[in-house]
Amino acid sequence: MSFNTFGHLFRVTTWGESHGPAIGATVDGCPPGIALEAEMLQHWLDRRKPGTSKYTTQRREADAVRILSGVYEGHTTGTPIQLMIENTDQRSKDYGDIAEKFRPGHADITYWQKYGIRDPRGGGRSSARETASRVAAGGVAREVLKALAPELRITGYMVAMGTLAIDRSAMDMDEIERNPFWVPDAGAAAEWANYLDRLRKEGNSVGAICEVVISGAPAGLGAPVYAKLDTELAAAMISINAVKGVEIGEGMNAARLTGVENADEITMGADGPIYGSNHAGGILGGISTGQDIVVRFAVKPTSSILAPRQTITKSGNPAEIITKGRHDPCVGIRAVPVGEAMAACVILDHLLLHRAQVGEGPRGQIG
Amino acid sequence: MSFNTFGHLFRVTTWGESHGPAIGATVDGCPPGIALEAEMLQHWLDRRKPGTSKYTTQRREADAVRILSGVYEGHTTGTPIQLMIENTDQRSKDYGDIAEKFRPGHADITYWQKYGIRDPRGGGRSSARETASRVAAGGVAREVLKALAPELRITGYMVAMGTLAIDRSAMDMDEIERNPFWVPDAGAAAEWANYLDRLRKEGNSVGAICEVVISGAPAGLGAPVYAKLDTELAAAMISINAVKGVEIGEGMNAARLTGVENADEITMGADGPIYGSNHAGGILGGISTGQDIVVRFAVKPTSSILAPRQTITKSGNPAEIITKGRHDPCVGIRAVPVGEAMAACVILDHLLLHRAQVGEGPRGQIG
Amino acid sequence: MSFNTFGHLFRVTTWGESHGPAIGATVDGCPPGIALEAEMLQHWLDRRKPGTSKYTTQRREADAVRILSGVYEGHTTGTPIQLMIENTDQRSKDYGDIAEKFRPGHADITYWQKYGIRDPRGGGRSSARETASRVAAGGVAREVLKALAPELRITGYMVAMGTLAIDRSAMDMDEIERNPFWVPDAGAAAEWANYLDRLRKEGNSVGAICEVVISGAPAGLGAPVYAKLDTELAAAMISINAVKGVEIGEGMNAARLTGVENADEITMGADGPIYGSNHAGGILGGISTGQDIVVRFAVKPTSSILAPRQTITKSGNPAEIITKGRHDPCVGIRAVPVGEAMAACVILDHLLLHRAQVGEGPRGQIG
Amino acid sequence: MSFNTFGHLFRVTTWGESHGPAIGATVDGCPPGIALEAEMLQHWLDRRKPGTSKYTTQRREADAVRILSGVYEGHTTGTPIQLMIENTDQRSKDYGDIAEKFRPGHADITYWQKYGIRDPRGGGRSSARETASRVAAGGVAREVLKALAPELRITGYMVAMGTLAIDRSAMDMDEIERNPFWVPDAGAAAEWANYLDRLRKEGNSVGAICEVVISGAPAGLGAPVYAKLDTELAAAMISINAVKGVEIGEGMNAARLTGVENADEITMGADGPIYGSNHAGGILGGISTGQDIVVRFAVKPTSSILAPRQTITKSGNPAEIITKGRHDPCVGIRAVPVGEAMAACVILDHLLLHRAQVGEGPRGQIG
Repeated sequence: MSFNTFGHLFRVTTWGESHGPAIGATVDGCPPGIALEAEMLQHWLDRRKPGTSKYTTQRREADAVRILSGVYEGHTTGTPIQLMIENTDQRSKDYGDIAEKFRPGHADITYWQKYGIRDPRGGGRSSARETASRVAAGGVAREVLKALAPELRITGYMVAMGTLAIDRSAMDMDEIERNPFWVPDAGAAAEWANYLDRLRKEGNSVGAICEVVISGAPAGLGAPVYAKLDTELAAAMISINAVKGVEIGEGMNAARLTGVENADEITMGADGPIYGSNHAGGILGGISTGQDIVVRFAVKPTSSILAPRQTITKSGNPAEIITKGRHDPCVGIRAVPVGEAMAACVILDHLLLHRAQVGEGPRGQIG
Repeated sequence: MSFNTFGHLFRVTTWGESHGPAIGATVDGCPPGIALEAEMLQHWLDRRKPGTSKYTTQRREADAVRILSGVYEGHTTGTPIQLMIENTDQRSKDYGDIAEKFRPGHADITYWQKYGIRDPRGGGRSSARETASRVAAGGVAREVLKALAPELRITGYMVAMGTLAIDRSAMDMDEIERNPFWVPDAGAAAEWANYLDRLRKEGNSVGAICEVVISGAPAGLGAPVYAKLDTELAAAMISINAVKGVEIGEGMNAARLTGVENADEITMGADGPIYGSNHAGGILGGISTGQDIVVRFAVKPTSSILAPRQTITKSGNPAEIITKGRHDPCVGIRAVPVGEAMAACVILDHLLLHRAQVGEGPRGQIG
Repeated sequence: MSFNTFGHLFRVTTWGESHGPAIGATVDGCPPGIALEAEMLQHWLDRRKPGTSKYTTQRREADAVRILSGVYEGHTTGTPIQLMIENTDQRSKDYGDIAEKFRPGHADITYWQKYGIRDPRGGGRSSARETASRVAAGGVAREVLKALAPELRITGYMVAMGTLAIDRSAMDMDEIERNPFWVPDAGAAAEWANYLDRLRKEGNSVGAICEVVISGAPAGLGAPVYAKLDTELAAAMISINAVKGVEIGEGMNAARLTGVENADEITMGADGPIYGSNHAGGILGGISTGQDIVVRFAVKPTSSILAPRQTITKSGNPAEIITKGRHDPCVGIRAVPVGEAMAACVILDHLLLHRAQVGEGPRGQIG
Repeated sequence: MSFNTFGHLFRVTTWGESHGPAIGATVDGCPPGIALEAEMLQHWLDRRKPGTSKYTTQRREADAVRILSGVYEGHTTGTPIQLMIENTDQRSKDYGDIAEKFRPGHADITYWQKYGIRDPRGGGRSSARETASRVAAGGVAREVLKALAPELRITGYMVAMGTLAIDRSAMDMDEIERNPFWVPDAGAAAEWANYLDRLRKEGNSVGAICEVVISGAPAGLGAPVYAKLDTELAAAMISINAVKGVEIGEGMNAARLTGVENADEITMGADGPIYGSNHAGGILGGISTGQDIVVRFAVKPTSSILAPRQTITKSGNPAEIITKGRHDPCVGIRAVPVGEAMAACVILDHLLLHRAQVGEGPRGQIG
């Protein structure tokens, strides 16, 4: 990862500001011959799109993606794919106050300190709007994965919002698409709606935890020791706006386990090794085991809130700030499709890296 | 990060296996004219060195580092610095069993699946021995930081081991060097000693949480959006052997907070902005604020344990495994100096990146 | 350099095909606070623009560049700059034949062999149209150079076309802008016009040699040993379409010299070392000396010609090919502004790399 | 390429100074399971070794290479391979004068200006001794190529020395190993011996042109547009010490050709396309055609000569310099195996890049 590019071989460079004319992603290194149409990407963008429920920002963006290059007669050519999304609903006047005052918990102050200039309209480059570009690029990765690893599935969902969490014993993946929280638990969805309504009306916001599971990934992905698969997934997730923590498998809880508890015992199945548990989250020594890969990340509460907070102005004067404008009361909700997109990009990148160094598929046979 | 290299401009490539003739690090991009002697690096290696207490592996390694290049008359020349540590205490016979059986929770099986060949002696490349190279390279980074950011301090310590945690109200940084756990709490140190003794005698092991604090870092470090400072610190930590989770500031707990609670309010001090709290862990929008930078990571329990576990052999036959040899009952202990070293490398790398793009120091003035 | 990106810190990723909706460049790592307007870039694009004389392709493109991101109120923000040029004059029907037959000397066949798919319209990604993106990005680099190295000048011109060459004793840099060949020799310009007219009427084309001189560059630029300044300039130039050879200073002729002849003797001037000659082309050991940096490159003749040549079809059948369409009789002419643009990008990238590792300006004093 | 690393996936980082304890290369990204022993690398190092004839430096170095990591039981493991060559014959006293005076045409002055410090012993990092590391790494690449592309051959030789050149009509590849100049022309070898003897006795030196031919490379290698195969080969060659020009196929002479002359006409053979000529040097649009890949580079004369030249000291005082010590009268001779090694690294890197993006072999069929 480097400035605005991530990935080694499947490389995504995103560009654009919240209230500029457009945002987008330049996708380089894509394998050729993959069927690709804008509609395939639109499907994923629509999931992240603002304004789809009262729990997300009321900004109205079509988020219509155009493919400007790299595709000929409906197939990728192996040359760079330019994905552009025009910004259409920029009400910059909403943000006048922010040009002078720094929002506590927001990147306003650090962008100013670092660069000495920033586009304050809608948070400029630091806006979560940048994540639409990630979703578009992730859509490309998903189409390639369909061809290279047809068994692979990537599923994201929320597991906690504020002080509320799902009941893992009641998880039902079919519920994910049925509620505005992408939560695999119908009971939680109802409860969370009330909770977030209340916070929203208070002009407050709240954090969340998202989980992404990658099933059907082959064993052998990951490039130890500095491009381990867990390292790269973690980096991908924590690069998403507002993410403050990331976990693989047991995550922070691994600290509480003993070696006896943590060992995922192995037996031999018809198609290869079978594990008695998955504390490892599908990754050992930075390389995938073939089990489900499980990554989880915490999203902090939106820092643009209506409740007044103490801050300073550019001139160093004390000020109180109330952030008007249209903000997500829980930005974690829209982080779910972003996390999925990042996972798709990382897994594809490592499929390509593995194919480069080792060839097709895992190398060492068992049994 | 890429295969065995990390860093953008201050680039460290580590090499070597646990029981090969030597391990080491090639450090490229180091600024010239920095005073550097092997003894300066040895200081840090001695902290990570095995065999210093009964709570770490009893392998006896001098871990003596030699500088083979890049230094002339005691100063760096700007050319690559080769750091070599010879392996002296390799009792490979201890590991015979491991060549055929896969340790549950260990990289044995995935290295085999990925590469179709692996050096089983002491875990080969997947051994935590690799982290000695990181500590040596981190020692170089620290000497450069002394010159470029003399106020900067990097302090690592343990905050939890298994089910035990420190009492943050009783933290005393002077205690860190006084106990074998690098724990800033004398009471915890005594309690942990009993706890780990018991586990060790049972042939078991346990996880831990380490925290690294960087104080005195200037505002403005970090390269959004894919080389954010938190992204890079997180990636650096989770690339360390056995790390399963990583947190910046509030970390996973940020999910539980509301926007009102999470906002670190700002006032103006004599030397710049002052924050009323540090939920952000010193980083906003991927850029340092000038506050303490706080990163935390969970280390899983050592998977090489004496307690018997079910596994399979390379041939796919069921087997029971007991890992003899000399292992750390809590590998998290020796992860503390490694986490510090990684922090030093990341911060230096970003000082150089910032200097490249923006020039010396932060750009935007406040007040 | 990597797929479609070049540069270490000032990183340019170009995208787009000859006859797609648009082409462009994503410029990352640009220093903040630099005055930048589309008009500044248009100036350079207009020099490369097709259809400005009868010696270049008659395709009519406005080559109007838009800045979609990274600039706020007329200044760069340090975030990625997206430069887009819409394609307006794509007469794809002209190229029907090329979809089936491979042009000798053209990338048609290798793109097909590599990717199994290609956009044949106007050469797709392999078209020299891609170089417009380079010129736009180079325009950004020039504006940054104005701020960081105001003394620096980059001047490109042609020194040979086919069997004709300039008379170096008659060189007059003021002539460069006065003729359609960017040739610093009024006599040559007249002669070359006749020569190229004749070739054009025959349906033939011809090669050329371009030279780019960078004056006013500080001593100390270049990152030995694999990012030497000459390595990077050479790579930049030979990455331009149709370039087959590249030289620094004496270039290939250095092979003919003795050590006595080749030594650029040094004396001390008021402002530093003065060299009695410049066989080195301003670079020693991969690092700039402060002298003029001189790079030269040979451009092969356009392979799309009206004269019939033997070839095969995709099906492997023999065929004769005559390439209609609108082609440059000497593509080397329009390579001049491209070479200048690449030089600007490389020099800026190395100014930033040097500033990162060593700080501002050269480090070692003389005298 | 970046500082001291080259390659994208097969990445080589070299380190070490002429008169330090050792030099070496860290080779990362090597495919696993390749048979590799130190003797295989030694074979190539012995060809480059100094002191093998009176036409090379009389420094006596065994150039014995040790493999410190990445190989287990005689096969590569996919982890980094550390190659170390100890320096044994460093007579640093020979170089006393150079610490104060700058040799005209040498990197002495620029290393000083850039870094403000340099290791003057034997030229330090700027010494051609660094190329031994390249040859060792190239030896690894050759062993991998044997497995991945068994038909591939890499052959380097000299085609010109000073004002003398080979007679291409008399070329006999079997002669290459029979003379100290690696020249495929017995007549030239005799003539060159006299010529170089004379220059050597005068305390002078001379330049040379080397050519490297890669035969048997598959079509489809190269990653347009900034990692074109010709770009990467050119960069690899010009990164070698003292190289001032580089050519692919016709090279600089391509400028003199018309499109009719330059077109390599295509017919269909039993195994694929056949080209009537090879002006392209086996590369079109940056991608290999399957023909012989031909790259040529000019090496300037050694700048360390016994003939007196005018220069200055570090203090800026005028001085005359005569460089004693043991120097190559024609450093181009020992550049031949270095050029071969670089070619091996580039080709392997691109085989891996191609395998990553496109899979095994070329994709598009003809016929």
